[in-house]
Amino acid sequence: MAMVQMDRTVKERSLLGLKDLSKQEIESILDRAAYWEQQPIKVNDVLRHKFVANMFFENSTRTRCSFEVAEKRLGAEVINFTAAASSVEKGESIYDTVRTLESMGMDAGVIRLKPVGLLEQIAERVKMPLVNAGDGINEHPTQALLDIYTIRKHFGQLSGLNVAIVGDVEHSRVARSNLWALRKFGAQVSFCAPDNMRTHDLDVPYVTMNEALQADVVMMLRVQLERHESNMLSSAEQYRSGYGLTLERVAQMKSHAIIMHPAPVNRNVEIDDSVVECEQSRIFDQMANGVPIRMAVLERAMT
Amino acid sequence: MAMVQMDRTVKERSLLGLKDLSKQEIESILDRAAYWEQQPIKVNDVLRHKFVANMFFENSTRTRCSFEVAEKRLGAEVINFTAAASSVEKGESIYDTVRTLESMGMDAGVIRLKPVGLLEQIAERVKMPLVNAGDGINEHPTQALLDIYTIRKHFGQLSGLNVAIVGDVEHSRVARSNLWALRKFGAQVSFCAPDNMRTHDLDVPYVTMNEALQADVVMMLRVQLERHESNMLSSAEQYRSGYGLTLERVAQMKSHAIIMHPAPVNRNVEIDDSVVECEQSRIFDQMANGVPIRMAVLERAMT
Amino acid sequence: MAMVQMDRTVKERSLLGLKDLSKQEIESILDRAAYWEQQPIKVNDVLRHKFVANMFFENSTRTRCSFEVAEKRLGAEVINFTAAASSVEKGESIYDTVRTLESMGMDAGVIRLKPVGLLEQIAERVKMPLVNAGDGINEHPTQALLDIYTIRKHFGQLSGLNVAIVGDVEHSRVARSNLWALRKFGAQVSFCAPDNMRTHDLDVPYVTMNEALQADVVMMLRVQLERHESNMLSSAEQYRSGYGLTLERVAQMKSHAIIMHPAPVNRNVEIDDSVVECEQSRIFDQMANGVPIRMAVLERAMT
Repeated sequence: MAMVQMDRTVKERSLLGLKDLSKQEIESILDRAAYWEQQPIKVNDVLRHKFVANMFFENSTRTRCSFEVAEKRLGAEVINFTAAASSVEKGESIYDTVRTLESMGMDAGVIRLKPVGLLEQIAERVKMPLVNAGDGINEHPTQALLDIYTIRKHFGQLSGLNVAIVGDVEHSRVARSNLWALRKFGAQVSFCAPDNMRTHDLDVPYVTMNEALQADVVMMLRVQLERHESNMLSSAEQYRSGYGLTLERVAQMKSHAIIMHPAPVNRNVEIDDSVVECEQSRIFDQMANGVPIRMAVLERAMT
Repeated sequence: MAMVQMDRTVKERSLLGLKDLSKQEIESILDRAAYWEQQPIKVNDVLRHKFVANMFFENSTRTRCSFEVAEKRLGAEVINFTAAASSVEKGESIYDTVRTLESMGMDAGVIRLKPVGLLEQIAERVKMPLVNAGDGINEHPTQALLDIYTIRKHFGQLSGLNVAIVGDVEHSRVARSNLWALRKFGAQVSFCAPDNMRTHDLDVPYVTMNEALQADVVMMLRVQLERHESNMLSSAEQYRSGYGLTLERVAQMKSHAIIMHPAPVNRNVEIDDSVVECEQSRIFDQMANGVPIRMAVLERAMT
Repeated sequence: MAMVQMDRTVKERSLLGLKDLSKQEIESILDRAAYWEQQPIKVNDVLRHKFVANMFFENSTRTRCSFEVAEKRLGAEVINFTAAASSVEKGESIYDTVRTLESMGMDAGVIRLKPVGLLEQIAERVKMPLVNAGDGINEHPTQALLDIYTIRKHFGQLSGLNVAIVGDVEHSRVARSNLWALRKFGAQVSFCAPDNMRTHDLDVPYVTMNEALQADVVMMLRVQLERHESNMLSSAEQYRSGYGLTLERVAQMKSHAIIMHPAPVNRNVEIDDSVVECEQSRIFDQMANGVPIRMAVLERAMT
């Protein structure tokens, strides 16, 4: 039951974003992830003798770990490259590192980086498939894939569902990737955010927090308060009172609705401590689902 | 000659400390380590297809390396998670990371962290076995296991031996874990420390440095001078003159006695340069013994 | 077609530098690298069940990755030890770490460190073979091996070639290792550098930039402007105008000549953006060649 994969180009093997991926391609990844999720044996030989580099120019040990588990479950050899936290790598320097690892014989690269637009430029210039593990505020496709996988698993389908994405949508690649993908499947996406965290480049309706709580999926975003100049503590409390998913607000949600968050969470800022693992939360399920999703994406890239 | 391991609970597989471990259980680990030490083949399949995460929220590349060697010798897949040196991770954030890695399918976690008491709370809330690689000033069980393994190897048994632990016992998890374990085996433990490094929570006799030198085992602790407010240099010299294991002091030791240190050493502070690898020193033997000890502990956790 | 390797001493297995290595030994490594480069299967069992530690006391993720790929292609188990960027490790502390990893059962160690002369001292005191991955301003033998491998591949032989090494030769271990090795093969080496980057300890002729451009091989060095006290930006521009390999200067080169650089490059400082991947550049070939070279060196160390 292998995926049919022949003569695809590097571009077709890469996963730079979901905006330009067809519904069929996304479905094929979700279905393959379901296959991997059901495998009883943890490690297999699909990527035996293949090398994959995890190139993280922006810190994220959790996402790197998820990719690394997926790679090792597929039997790949893993090389981790993490830019020093202190170094602010410029575009050309990032490109040089990717080319360097390609030269060393990598069969694919997983990459996280900050400068928006750079990933596409690099992908044009290298011959190995690249998997986007988060590029600036643009896209985070594997996160959105695991999100819609989690939603589909709960609701059986995506069409007609209301998904409210709450938080700093302006700076959120998670929001963008989810938006593109969910709409392909006929879901209704709305944003909920304070004025200073809104973007008007995307044609998405903004709803109030009360309206957001009526959605089938309440997807909270991590607030990066350090992005916003203001007194941190008061801001965290203010944020919680205006947009945090408190226990009181969870009580207003529909009984069949679910709570999501890309993690790591800021407890008692965007989501209350007691909500993180409540019955409606799918937060740790999302993390579990990330592994088979990334297995499907890596298999697609390298076989 | 496999260990008999059936239907044990996660709690029984975990190793949080030696205080509550029975003498029989400790002996079983020591015996299994002896088995692993004698194996001619370096890598085996005992943990084939099992994943273990090394989660270090406090820096210690040496201990992490020792665990990683043990894991790889058992054929496990290893995921290393190291918190950025700069980040001061709070309890909930550490818990979230452990839960995240558990969600990703880890079969066990090795964990080092600072906040005392947190490890037990986390262990109550996760379903994978945890191995304590050092939690605050509480316990460092694998270090003490390799210490008593080293002592047992030299003396044949532990009962009746005098063990003097010299240094900052107040902040030492190594001292605590050794104390609990050594007493179960009938060894006499004494502490030797300057006033500002003593603890009075433990019922242990304090001895002078001259008395400590009469012990069968002189176990030096790493001094963390940065903990103690004072002029560093003068303090290092003062410390050495009062409590350092100098060549002169080694000359006072019994001829059959051995010198131990959990490493890394501060040469010419708590132990003189020329003493580190002297005939009576077991310091690098301790490190060698750490690998089979951790193999036994990990096998116990995951099979 | 295995290398004949019997009863060699640890010293003969180690690779501390090229200065004292015979031409025959270097050729044997180059030939074995050619063998590895041609292997169709990426991962083999030559170092199965062997452990190698990459011990980097000075940052270099690219070199570490290259060694790690080589190690994994040979089937070895890899332990990465990287000193915290912040810690300035002293000689004894580096020695203790190497001894620690040796005690844990490593079969060889790859080591990068800053203090000149320390590597030889450590090699005298440990029993596992060591491979120098860069020691201070002394030697960087695997870099020079991959350099001469790249040159030999292009020109067929090394004898009689003119090689100009351009840049901060005073602080360059790459220049030193290349100098020793190239001369053994009958190549003519010249240096080209501003006054403040020259060394007079080595008997090498200095040439002007125009003369350097007439060489068969123009080997640019990475400029570390932070070493030189002066206004950075003006210095970068001044450096480029005096010693940078600009497109105009490339036009002056002989048509058969090649451009080399140990990487990472400072684009538009010592080498222009448009030159990095021009037809005469072998920069990414060098990186590709680093893997089979390091495979040959590691095989020599551990079998």
